[in-house]
Amino acid sequence: MPQVIQQTPSAYGYPLLIKQLLHSALSTAPDQEIIYGQRRLTYTGFYQRVQRLANVLKEMGVQAGNTVAVMDWDSNRYLECFFAVPMMGCVLQTVNVRLSPEQIAYTLNHAQADVLLVNSDFMPVLKQIRGELTTLTRCVLLTDDNTPCPRGPGFAGEYEELLAQAEASYSFPDFDENARATTFYTTGTTGLPKGVYFSHRQLVLHTLGTTAGLALAPQQGRLHRDDVYMPLTPMFHVHAWGLPYVATMAGVKQVYPGRYVPDTICRLIREEKVTFSHCVPTILQMILSSEQARHTDLTGWKMIIGGSAMTGALAKAALERGLDVFTGYGMSETCPVLTLAQVATADLGSDRETTLRLKTGRPLPLVALRTVDGEMNDCPHDGKSTGEVVVRAPWLTQGYLHQPETSEDLWHGGWLHTQDIGHIDGEGYLQVTDRIKDVIKTGGEWVSSLQIEDIIARHPAVAETAVIGIQDGKWGERPIALVVLKKDSTGVNEEDIRRHVMAAAEAGTISRYGVPDRVQFVTELARTSVGKLNKRVMREQYPARENK
Amino acid sequence: MPQVIQQTPSAYGYPLLIKQLLHSALSTAPDQEIIYGQRRLTYTGFYQRVQRLANVLKEMGVQAGNTVAVMDWDSNRYLECFFAVPMMGCVLQTVNVRLSPEQIAYTLNHAQADVLLVNSDFMPVLKQIRGELTTLTRCVLLTDDNTPCPRGPGFAGEYEELLAQAEASYSFPDFDENARATTFYTTGTTGLPKGVYFSHRQLVLHTLGTTAGLALAPQQGRLHRDDVYMPLTPMFHVHAWGLPYVATMAGVKQVYPGRYVPDTICRLIREEKVTFSHCVPTILQMILSSEQARHTDLTGWKMIIGGSAMTGALAKAALERGLDVFTGYGMSETCPVLTLAQVATADLGSDRETTLRLKTGRPLPLVALRTVDGEMNDCPHDGKSTGEVVVRAPWLTQGYLHQPETSEDLWHGGWLHTQDIGHIDGEGYLQVTDRIKDVIKTGGEWVSSLQIEDIIARHPAVAETAVIGIQDGKWGERPIALVVLKKDSTGVNEEDIRRHVMAAAEAGTISRYGVPDRVQFVTELARTSVGKLNKRVMREQYPARENK
Repeated sequence: MPQVIQQTPSAYGYPLLIKQLLHSALSTAPDQEIIYGQRRLTYTGFYQRVQRLANVLKEMGVQAGNTVAVMDWDSNRYLECFFAVPMMGCVLQTVNVRLSPEQIAYTLNHAQADVLLVNSDFMPVLKQIRGELTTLTRCVLLTDDNTPCPRGPGFAGEYEELLAQAEASYSFPDFDENARATTFYTTGTTGLPKGVYFSHRQLVLHTLGTTAGLALAPQQGRLHRDDVYMPLTPMFHVHAWGLPYVATMAGVKQVYPGRYVPDTICRLIREEKVTFSHCVPTILQMILSSEQARHTDLTGWKMIIGGSAMTGALAKAALERGLDVFTGYGMSETCPVLTLAQVATADLGSDRETTLRLKTGRPLPLVALRTVDGEMNDCPHDGKSTGEVVVRAPWLTQGYLHQPETSEDLWHGGWLHTQDIGHIDGEGYLQVTDRIKDVIKTGGEWVSSLQIEDIIARHPAVAETAVIGIQDGKWGERPIALVVLKKDSTGVNEEDIRRHVMAAAEAGTISRYGVPDRVQFVTELARTSVGKLNKRVMREQYPARENK
Repeated sequence: MPQVIQQTPSAYGYPLLIKQLLHSALSTAPDQEIIYGQRRLTYTGFYQRVQRLANVLKEMGVQAGNTVAVMDWDSNRYLECFFAVPMMGCVLQTVNVRLSPEQIAYTLNHAQADVLLVNSDFMPVLKQIRGELTTLTRCVLLTDDNTPCPRGPGFAGEYEELLAQAEASYSFPDFDENARATTFYTTGTTGLPKGVYFSHRQLVLHTLGTTAGLALAPQQGRLHRDDVYMPLTPMFHVHAWGLPYVATMAGVKQVYPGRYVPDTICRLIREEKVTFSHCVPTILQMILSSEQARHTDLTGWKMIIGGSAMTGALAKAALERGLDVFTGYGMSETCPVLTLAQVATADLGSDRETTLRLKTGRPLPLVALRTVDGEMNDCPHDGKSTGEVVVRAPWLTQGYLHQPETSEDLWHGGWLHTQDIGHIDGEGYLQVTDRIKDVIKTGGEWVSSLQIEDIIARHPAVAETAVIGIQDGKWGERPIALVVLKKDSTGVNEEDIRRHVMAAAEAGTISRYGVPDRVQFVTELARTSVGKLNKRVMREQYPARENK
């Protein structure tokens, strides 16, 4: 058996706790700034506020093991919660303020939130759901516009007033590094929101791994101590991709933008010289097309794009404006960062540079990432053989909160199943091509419904299309295509579309298994409330036919 | 109580094991090179050899928990041992080949080494001590000059021959991350060598923390994926400062220089374009003054200097040759890296740039570093108040092997006592000024013997001097100065020297407590076998006088 090391009784075993991330920044960058609105803090001042917040919560009766929920825009207050709440031994619940009031109530109850820090912008939501909240006892008001704090037993007071009255010194205890530090909820297309959770150890290791992945980049996409960081993925969304922890450990200047308003964002870029951010493609698009962006020099602004795939057109537009955009990949279950699509020095300026920025990315240090078939065998790293992306890393949720069955599904076989389909090339670049529920398993092969849709959409008569897999006794599944024709198209029949796909199969673009058995013209495609194709409904509308 | 996270039964908990450092490099840099002599490996090829080595050891009967010792120069073989041995669940003992044969025998027995991999250069040593080795059962020969392997039961064979016959596939198991991975011995001026030891978890965290500290540097002293790494601190010495693990995780090109020969080192810099190394001042001096260095472009060669303080003259000579030299600090007990003296961008090109490179450095992420008085109170961070340097980090030895008493001394009060004295300034730069045993505690103050010596040495009549503290009933200790006068000096008496120091105290350079009670002229100063001042002997020669 391996020999476990002996520890002399007085030795400090050093649990990996979030408080440990602060040591070097506080000692080497005490005067570095953290900025929100008119508020400019030093790191020393920030840490005093973290201690004050801990005393406020303690005075409110909050104890280790309690859950403290937050509903706020991106602010220094939120960053203070990122540290103070877990450092007290409590759980920070970052509430997704974009959920419906009913969903917010569900998540607060499910996480058993004891205390809520709530921005005055969300007071109407709180009023609406207050009667449904079964565990919440006290609230703290956060406000940027001097909204008065509601009177009565529910509210302890307004955040700044409470902090001003509190002691600026708090002794944060040591405890088990596997203590839960954060919880938040992920919403799928079906079912109730699912809670994921991360321990102190996991967040410290995610911070170290993400720092190593970013900082080791020779040129493109690297983070360093002279950067100025501003999140553009909300702090309630997977810890703003964990970057506030990275930025704080690194001791860099941080800028918090509040609610995302393009003009404010552009002003902060100009005035605070922001150099490092991350966002989803929609936000990037919103910024680039804003009036203020025309008058703002965006050159050298490093930007990780995640959440959904960036199009080539968006990347081109961003690169033309001088942004250094590149893809990052992860999900709520993974803390989140797994891969970064950084471009090697030799590829900068080459034909493939933009292509590489659009790839899903290469794994961070410590991330074991595989693409596997249904029997968990590795797919070859040939840049084309697709399989499910499964991962191991020291920062993956160890289950869904209070959901043993879906937890086991997530982890079956000892690897976290991302439900993404992709391929890996010889340089280690992952390319995600599909969500697993959009893939059709037929004749032992995986066929991408998105790829078939792409081919069908190129037919001149086709307005839009959706390809779904339907059960088949012989082949497992078989693809069928639902097609909406353009209004002016004439003389096209369903077999024409099928032959169009067949031609692509004969040219080797897709597998022959991918040619749909049936093409069905329809007048419209089923969609979800937010406008996404709803393939679940389509599969119900077009069930399997009897085998011939 | 904080809530420990729930883990669904199938979830992978991800122990921090050395094997986990390989994931991203193997998948993203499979063709990157590792070079030793004529041997050029890819990372893929290196990992195959790691697996072959594990099979060789397994065939020899090595089991998890066994200790495998290595006596070699810096080579790819050593790097293979850095990974294969701990990854099997065994302990790697890196033997200091500069110790005397008796000390080497002592360390092999004390660590209970089961197997020894020995370079043919050290066969004479092994022959000399073989009869004394009480636990060693088998050896493997390492050779660069085709030295034949000794026949007989003691030797399993020659390394390359054994690897060639072994399977290139080995399934490295998971086990407790607190398993001991490495052991080596540190020698003080007195007593037997002391064993320190590091777990898998500690080495993984040291790798991540050191990577973050190096890679986050904006310009000066940063490591990135385009660097070419070559160690110039021996691999038997505190894991070559842990940088081989950093370089491997980062997937950078690595060059191993064998025995340190200036001409070979210069050739490797030219041919392999080495950009990142680390060494002690003596090695840097040796390289700079070598014949080959005159014909070698050293521009941009980044070099961490540690082990002992770099002089201003050496730093200047190195900087003039274009080297990017800066100080790193740590010791055997600390894995080793604690601080790096990187220069902030604003200070590059300034008057203080060289001064900053010579400072002891600023703490890495996760390193809590304090200077404290005898009651463990913090000294102010004013750049002058000195105290003992004590640290916490997730990679400090948790004791000395089989030495409970010295282990408790090391860790008394829950902080690792470095026995170094220094001060910290407002930017977090530590400056070590003394070893604690060279400091005189008098009247509640700590007085630096080195500083008093420096003042005395400036007197024109003084050839050399040593200041020691002697017991004093009233003051705790009092300094006395031993002085060797220059041969041609005349008319100087002991009181003249005392007044010379008193003048410095009146000018505020040192505390008045630092003025020696006695100055004693001597003809020579006691020295150790390697030429260092032996203050222990001096204190015995000049015991406390009776108090007046």
